[in-house]
Amino acid sequence: MKELDFIDYLSKRHKIKKPVIRGIGDDCAILEYTKEKYMLFTCDMIIEGTHFSAKARPFQIGWKAMACNISDIAAMGGVPKYALVSVGVPRNRNMGFLKCIAEGVEALCRRFDVIVIGGDTNSSVKTVLNVTLIGEVEKRHVITRSGAKPGDLIFVTGALGEGKNKHLSFLPRLKEARILAKNFRISSMIDLSDGLAMDMNRLARASGVGARIYKSLIPLSEESEPVDKAISSGEDFELLFTASKDEARKIIMRMGKKGDLPVTLIGEVVERSLGVKLIGENGQLKPLRPKGYAHL
Amino acid sequence: MKELDFIDYLSKRHKIKKPVIRGIGDDCAILEYTKEKYMLFTCDMIIEGTHFSAKARPFQIGWKAMACNISDIAAMGGVPKYALVSVGVPRNRNMGFLKCIAEGVEALCRRFDVIVIGGDTNSSVKTVLNVTLIGEVEKRHVITRSGAKPGDLIFVTGALGEGKNKHLSFLPRLKEARILAKNFRISSMIDLSDGLAMDMNRLARASGVGARIYKSLIPLSEESEPVDKAISSGEDFELLFTASKDEARKIIMRMGKKGDLPVTLIGEVVERSLGVKLIGENGQLKPLRPKGYAHL
Repeated sequence: MKELDFIDYLSKRHKIKKPVIRGIGDDCAILEYTKEKYMLFTCDMIIEGTHFSAKARPFQIGWKAMACNISDIAAMGGVPKYALVSVGVPRNRNMGFLKCIAEGVEALCRRFDVIVIGGDTNSSVKTVLNVTLIGEVEKRHVITRSGAKPGDLIFVTGALGEGKNKHLSFLPRLKEARILAKNFRISSMIDLSDGLAMDMNRLARASGVGARIYKSLIPLSEESEPVDKAISSGEDFELLFTASKDEARKIIMRMGKKGDLPVTLIGEVVERSLGVKLIGENGQLKPLRPKGYAHL
Repeated sequence: MKELDFIDYLSKRHKIKKPVIRGIGDDCAILEYTKEKYMLFTCDMIIEGTHFSAKARPFQIGWKAMACNISDIAAMGGVPKYALVSVGVPRNRNMGFLKCIAEGVEALCRRFDVIVIGGDTNSSVKTVLNVTLIGEVEKRHVITRSGAKPGDLIFVTGALGEGKNKHLSFLPRLKEARILAKNFRISSMIDLSDGLAMDMNRLARASGVGARIYKSLIPLSEESEPVDKAISSGEDFELLFTASKDEARKIIMRMGKKGDLPVTLIGEVVERSLGVKLIGENGQLKPLRPKGYAHL
């Protein structure tokens, strides 16, 4: 069973009705909250042997579990607020191990002003950590995967291709996401957890559109894998987003002026019937296939 | 590191301020929500080899993970509303295995009108399931661990001593908890996840009181272990609660009249300095020591 099948299985059995605005199928669930705000919910489980090796430092395990979730809140334009942290660790691990996991969690909590409001501790054969993160977003600023329109331009933050090196220590793009959400009309956004190919397809499917990505425009980090591999590699945790051409112009101007918004234009949104395609250096089109990181 | 140490470690680093009413340290965290209601948050992780054996039916694994969490919401007097479900399963398990876990989750969702709003699926060496459950409770009905007063009487729902047989299939005491919350002034409540001895001590510590439990009054189920063992055995998932003598009288009257509230009076709350004690058949007192189920 692929990941999507299990999530689909659950989501099909749950008719969404108010106060739930959006259930399974975006980076976060959305719930009616105050007059001006929605509440956001997301969870991520990371497991030894799947998301990190037995040699990973416990601080990094805690950091990563929080960072993945903050990235999901960022992708909706929101601000993280409260976390519930469940942990399973082998009996033979000492107290310092568990404390270092907690310190990794804490480091990001302090940085982004998140409060841990619940927890559960267990023994386990392999180390496993689950974080559920609750956030808030102004109703007028919320961003989903499903608002992209043909003609919109496609951007990505930062540079891709180094998830393998940075996945245990990356800083989620919360600051950038909030700048985008508060200052521009972002038509859709998703975080790149499973690679550009996979996540571009998710965004396109959720929006009912197609896309053209220009291979030569994809920003690669210094120690990136080759571009063809970088497209399919997961755990970049950069943000992929779309905006109308008018808004795109403003975003680019702001980027040049303030220098606090490292984004790159990589393509455009097209009609759904045109599919999701990668345009090579010599202009040929090929499908941008989701061969990305799949956990199952 | 014992469970409490890790949770304490996290909680000490988080100053609770509004809208958080209560963070770590009760069955659920409490958050300001609407004018009339609080929002409740709880999470539980269950792991193969710790909380269930490799032979457990996947339906039961899903059921148990949901049931533990519903029990925590019940202990606050609340109603469960939304769930986020993270799962890790071995790669060699087939699609049916994952589907049966989902069906176990679903069965309780249908019964208690819970919507799954988020999920995460992963591969894992051992099966692991984390549920975060979000609930609501009317502000005037919320019950915590910390309101017991000397002179209050102590009750328990149902019968104890069969957690070992029923922990994969128990029905959380949500209905009973709501009857209690809506019709009576319950001064404190906790669910018996780790055994009467452990959880009575937790409630007493949170309330700053002592307790006398009459051994001969403890209700045991038909296939219970001997009482001394039953006191320390976890996973009964019954509710332990306190009420003033006046309210206790009303509870007992209602129980006799309607038959929908199986509760038993087992003791009384005393001054903290008198400790938490078990009174034997011949009247001798001994400490009710928390030797209960500890996951780490």
